[in-house]
Amino acid sequence: MSLNTVNIEELSVNTIRCLSMDAIEKAKSGHPGMPMGCAPLAYTLYTKILKHNPSNPGWWNRDRFVLSAGHGSMLLYSILHLCGYEISLDDIKNFRQLGSLTAGHPEVFHTPGVETTTGPLGQGFANAVGMAVARNFLAAKFNKPGYEIVSGHITGIVSDGDIMEGISHEAASFAGTNKIGKLVLFYDNNNITIDGSTDKTMTEDVGARFRAYHWEVLHIKDVNDLNEVENVARFAFSIKNKPVLVITDTTIGYGSPNKAGSESSHGAPLGEDEVAMTKENLGWEYKEDFFVPDEVRADFEAAKGEGIIEEEKWKFKFEKYKGTYPELAKLYKAFMSGNLNDDWKKELPVYNDYTKSIATRKISGEVIQKLKDIFPNMMGGSADLAGSNNTTMKGVPDFSPQDYSGRNINFGIREHAMGAILNGMALYGGVMPYGATFMIFSEYMRPALRMAALMKLAPKYVFTHDSIGLGEDGPTHQPVEQLAALRAIPNLYVIRPADANETVEAWKTAIEMKDAPVLLALTRQGLPVIDRSKYAPADDVKKGAYVLKYESKEPELILIGTGSEVYVCIDAAEKLEAEGISTRVVSFPSWELFEKQDAEYRESVLPKAVKARLVVEAGIRMGWEKYIGLEGDAVTIETFGSSAPNKVLFEKFGFTAENVVNKSKELLQSF
Amino acid sequence: MSLNTVNIEELSVNTIRCLSMDAIEKAKSGHPGMPMGCAPLAYTLYTKILKHNPSNPGWWNRDRFVLSAGHGSMLLYSILHLCGYEISLDDIKNFRQLGSLTAGHPEVFHTPGVETTTGPLGQGFANAVGMAVARNFLAAKFNKPGYEIVSGHITGIVSDGDIMEGISHEAASFAGTNKIGKLVLFYDNNNITIDGSTDKTMTEDVGARFRAYHWEVLHIKDVNDLNEVENVARFAFSIKNKPVLVITDTTIGYGSPNKAGSESSHGAPLGEDEVAMTKENLGWEYKEDFFVPDEVRADFEAAKGEGIIEEEKWKFKFEKYKGTYPELAKLYKAFMSGNLNDDWKKELPVYNDYTKSIATRKISGEVIQKLKDIFPNMMGGSADLAGSNNTTMKGVPDFSPQDYSGRNINFGIREHAMGAILNGMALYGGVMPYGATFMIFSEYMRPALRMAALMKLAPKYVFTHDSIGLGEDGPTHQPVEQLAALRAIPNLYVIRPADANETVEAWKTAIEMKDAPVLLALTRQGLPVIDRSKYAPADDVKKGAYVLKYESKEPELILIGTGSEVYVCIDAAEKLEAEGISTRVVSFPSWELFEKQDAEYRESVLPKAVKARLVVEAGIRMGWEKYIGLEGDAVTIETFGSSAPNKVLFEKFGFTAENVVNKSKELLQSF
Repeated sequence: MSLNTVNIEELSVNTIRCLSMDAIEKAKSGHPGMPMGCAPLAYTLYTKILKHNPSNPGWWNRDRFVLSAGHGSMLLYSILHLCGYEISLDDIKNFRQLGSLTAGHPEVFHTPGVETTTGPLGQGFANAVGMAVARNFLAAKFNKPGYEIVSGHITGIVSDGDIMEGISHEAASFAGTNKIGKLVLFYDNNNITIDGSTDKTMTEDVGARFRAYHWEVLHIKDVNDLNEVENVARFAFSIKNKPVLVITDTTIGYGSPNKAGSESSHGAPLGEDEVAMTKENLGWEYKEDFFVPDEVRADFEAAKGEGIIEEEKWKFKFEKYKGTYPELAKLYKAFMSGNLNDDWKKELPVYNDYTKSIATRKISGEVIQKLKDIFPNMMGGSADLAGSNNTTMKGVPDFSPQDYSGRNINFGIREHAMGAILNGMALYGGVMPYGATFMIFSEYMRPALRMAALMKLAPKYVFTHDSIGLGEDGPTHQPVEQLAALRAIPNLYVIRPADANETVEAWKTAIEMKDAPVLLALTRQGLPVIDRSKYAPADDVKKGAYVLKYESKEPELILIGTGSEVYVCIDAAEKLEAEGISTRVVSFPSWELFEKQDAEYRESVLPKAVKARLVVEAGIRMGWEKYIGLEGDAVTIETFGSSAPNKVLFEKFGFTAENVVNKSKELLQSF
Repeated sequence: MSLNTVNIEELSVNTIRCLSMDAIEKAKSGHPGMPMGCAPLAYTLYTKILKHNPSNPGWWNRDRFVLSAGHGSMLLYSILHLCGYEISLDDIKNFRQLGSLTAGHPEVFHTPGVETTTGPLGQGFANAVGMAVARNFLAAKFNKPGYEIVSGHITGIVSDGDIMEGISHEAASFAGTNKIGKLVLFYDNNNITIDGSTDKTMTEDVGARFRAYHWEVLHIKDVNDLNEVENVARFAFSIKNKPVLVITDTTIGYGSPNKAGSESSHGAPLGEDEVAMTKENLGWEYKEDFFVPDEVRADFEAAKGEGIIEEEKWKFKFEKYKGTYPELAKLYKAFMSGNLNDDWKKELPVYNDYTKSIATRKISGEVIQKLKDIFPNMMGGSADLAGSNNTTMKGVPDFSPQDYSGRNINFGIREHAMGAILNGMALYGGVMPYGATFMIFSEYMRPALRMAALMKLAPKYVFTHDSIGLGEDGPTHQPVEQLAALRAIPNLYVIRPADANETVEAWKTAIEMKDAPVLLALTRQGLPVIDRSKYAPADDVKKGAYVLKYESKEPELILIGTGSEVYVCIDAAEKLEAEGISTRVVSFPSWELFEKQDAEYRESVLPKAVKARLVVEAGIRMGWEKYIGLEGDAVTIETFGSSAPNKVLFEKFGFTAENVVNKSKELLQSF
């Protein structure tokens, strides 16, 4: 496409550019370069390639488009607006303003047509892989000859930043190993990052790299050649047995006389004068800002119409499918709507042999064996620690190129991609994803955990080896600050069960949570099964904290424990009671759940009148002051751990009944 | 090498295997498979290739060996012991016991000959790249024709896990782009991970991938062929203009009749019987555990002797160098010992135009312009946000293949590798590394931040855009829980300065810190330069918190602010004082620094008697209860942020003087 030539398609492409420029200019904030460079690609995809229905953005079998380069949000808003999604021109004018549909970076569940929240680079790339995992699973499970009920493509645009971030390596290697087809990512190869030419930072041969992952690599040499874009895209979409990277040569800030091809067009408005010059340069004849020519409106009407037809065709097919495979059709609907099983909790185990000592990770593994049958769409695995995390669903095949209906996923040693793939699976819908690793390696996946919490997705995380209690592996592997750092994430639920029955309850809560991620912090080491005939039942795990052992008379002291330290508190409390000190033990598996309870319940667990409160947790103290105030105390660990057998460490760091008794007495004396 | 054949070299290799097996067996914990597979490689490197001096592990020009596969620690301990490093046979027998030199994973500064702490996969890989960066810089700066003062190689062993983790992609792409030579990493290609065959998780063509990064890729087909190992290693060490990956085919658990080649040898002792069978299989004739044959001792004596000679040769060369280039020799010593400049603080700027409003990131940039001249070994950069982070040293060349004496590093969009490269630079010594990104992306580099803190390294981090105050980019970019999550890391110092002069003081503290990483949390938005003629000077930033504004009479209320919220506190305090409420304002840039002060100082800042305390910080409240107790209150933000201009957001979330005044009054009424 040469400048100054105007045909309807080019005019539509330029409309995307001009809307994007105008919105960014008005907001005095945003990233014009990417939308201007990629406008022809977005135009081609949304009008000629994608099967999507602007009238129903939630159509289950739609193609899904991921803008991994989330800073190019105006590209997406412009094209969605033009396609007829419910984003008005006023919304475009309100770009980046409080509460508007057009937030700085795309936000899923906030803006129609946005498939995932992006911005932190690499996340969208791996989300796309996750969506394709869910799609492949559902396709394998539900498609029948002649009935491709699940067939949507996953596509998107990724940037230099996505390509550089390590998570793209992890996700790409995973996708290649699993030969995931109908996954087409366009790499916006503009050779520019914020700091300038990619020569300075990235000389790698991206194509060779992705071929090494067993991806197909295609090339669009001129994104402004709409025929080339369409032809290559069509070919890419025809490839079924492996993922495709389409290296798409673009010019950042295309059309801008002074800023095209330069980092100056990346992250700031072009400026009023430059916008005017750019419009002139593009042959844009309209004076009015935010202008959409009538012929462009007409051009996009067709896309909107086709979307309705596509969905209708699918519905028609689905109805026939329902006739032939009624049970499958019902199950598919149940999967996609998330309404699977109401009466499942009673199927979970109860542990009442109180002489046993069992690691909570083992109990979790036993619960998973029940859940796998209850929820046939439960799907997940571990970052190469399945045996240690106890997360393998026994008797269930692996998800693999040989069998995409398998539900055990081998993520490999790729925690970060695992986190973002789980998000992609949750976003696609139809599956109940979970992932696992050692708790210390939650650090590798934090950006993905945060995105799950921000998007209100509900994957489940099984984080085992949750303290110095893991023993000999030492400080590199021992969580110390992780509980605090995870509790810090808004809308993430951390549950650290104290024994077998609390672990069962924790899983129940995790399964029931639909709008927030939940993580279970579990032990490597064995823990006594708490005697529920003597102490309170575990039912109130769902309330975050509960009185496990009531005091013998008016309480003098409250011991607060979590996870593996709760039985230490019980032992200590019994010793204290024997010495006449009336002691309550509160098991406190989850701050976030406790905070959701009403004031009355919270007071019933932690009466204001009792100020002598001692927390016992094999993690840092930070944040516990909220529950113990300035007058309470804590047996916690403020340094990194150490390499030694776990019992030696528990002794060394003071997590023994004796030390808790002594600290309790000291505390009581301070009043 | 065939089994049952015994020559002295094979006997030495088997000694490594047997020591490793015995230690793991005695500890009942550890990872035998890797040491057994890689023993021939370690033997060859330490006895024939590496220039190292067991009698002086700290020799500046030594070759550095990084065991990125840290779980194979017994390989390293065995070879270090045999080479004559100060690790006794008793230390080997105490593997993984409390306080022993032979911790579960290798720990630098704890065990002689260990170059970096490893275990979390991928970290060592990127540490090695960082060491090579420092080495290249120092070589470019100090080497003269005929005087290769700085010449040591960086080498190491990496595992499947390292290859899979995203950080290895980031670091490898960076190293390839920068054509960093004399960096030779051996990839222990054993095709086994914890969960089984790598077929399930990683089918990528590793060689092709690394060639795409412009690495040289070599291959050792049989690690037990000591000639092949030596020849390939020698060739690899001869390559000067690019990094080298040596794909080394090994058998995990080599020698074990029942566990070789299987994941069962990876992470647990082989078992007494299997050890006995393995020894027999290896032709090991000795009954005694932990046995080192005399001829093996003699074999390693040579290595020890050669190390001494190598260092002497270097010393001799250095003396001649000193004669010819006395100033350079002096500077090199100053760099390596870290004693550069005593009297530098007065050279930093002072800001006394109190009418100005300047972002703390800008001030930091101005300070860096001074520091770059004061410390000619200061070296660092940004993860592609140099312009936004204000971290470029102006007039200083980029570190690049054209000029390794450059000090501005272009890390690319690779926060995680940046963190670990900074650690490697600090470990090499001679340089003062710093790195930068948006504060939200600290999440991408947390595992490396943690390693810095654990190793007591002292890189400096410039984290800008530290709150919702960054505005329109929205919740994906706005830190909310990051301050808390970073404060949670033991031995990491978080400093969040309130204005220009506090930023200068924060940098002073950061520079002076030698055994802990320090991060500066800085604003995107402009902040008033606090009027130091009216309020306290900024000198006490180093104490973590100080009284910025004293109360007019007995204090009724303490407002505690950090960073961009301090001026809000000042405004509020002035309004409260005008209404007769005696109000103190405490600027609280750093918890960690404050905790190091004595009780008297802490009491002087936060008198116990004043319980009406209100914290104002644009982050989560978690942890502040330590300073405000159960009776204080906080203006904080407990949800994710939002996309809008920063002033709109500060209003929405209540970070205004008006809201702080209202909250203060409410708080006072509660008493």
